[in-house]
Amino acid sequence: MITGIEHIGIAVNKIADIIDFYEDFLGLKLVKIEESKQHRIKAALLTVNNMKIELIEPLDKESSISKFLDRKGQGIHHIAFRVDDLGTLIKDLKSKGFILIDEKPRIGIEGKKIAFLHPKSTGNVLIELCEH
Amino acid sequence: MITGIEHIGIAVNKIADIIDFYEDFLGLKLVKIEESKQHRIKAALLTVNNMKIELIEPLDKESSISKFLDRKGQGIHHIAFRVDDLGTLIKDLKSKGFILIDEKPRIGIEGKKIAFLHPKSTGNVLIELCEH
Repeated sequence: MITGIEHIGIAVNKIADIIDFYEDFLGLKLVKIEESKQHRIKAALLTVNNMKIELIEPLDKESSISKFLDRKGQGIHHIAFRVDDLGTLIKDLKSKGFILIDEKPRIGIEGKKIAFLHPKSTGNVLIELCEH
Repeated sequence: MITGIEHIGIAVNKIADIIDFYEDFLGLKLVKIEESKQHRIKAALLTVNNMKIELIEPLDKESSISKFLDRKGQGIHHIAFRVDDLGTLIKDLKSKGFILIDEKPRIGIEGKKIAFLHPKSTGNVLIELCEH
């Protein structure tokens, strides 16, 4: 079951080039910048009261974020919903014919269990489901 | 000053074709469907705990949403931040060189005061600022 929106993911060329806009002009609070060699990304986590924004920069050309940037340019990349039992939800969605990018939960940035739904199943919105 | 995220706007071809996904599979609660002839859109407002999702369907070919759909297809359209004094924030952003689509607050769907920042100023993210 979905219990809220965890964060919005935004693909950027360089975190350093845009972070001032989010911190200084919008007044969001930078929690941390984390690098994941496994996912080939660097992510800046920012909070604003009820929500988080994740700025995602590719570490190399093989990163899925590089491919997104090549195809669409910078911009909003995904919405992440918080769920309380990801394993059960994935099984349920699969049985209803949803296409999942991750058919089993995997560990994402910040150590959360995550899985992505394919945009084909969601009106072209990349949706992440995550369980803390 | 930004006090939170108000909603995420998603451009869709037809609300009726995708609403079941958000209501039945994700479990979001439909608050209302509103039509605005002035903005040439129909919007479905859905809530999930801390946040809202706005599904936006164009009413005709002249709608800015039609143009977005023609250019990019369905998908995430904008992020709306809640602010406490929109007039002052607009002046402040203008003085700092930000490009605004709306240089003065205007009335959006649900009667809120709103203004859009141009994606050129924000790393290609369409940002709505809104004051209740």
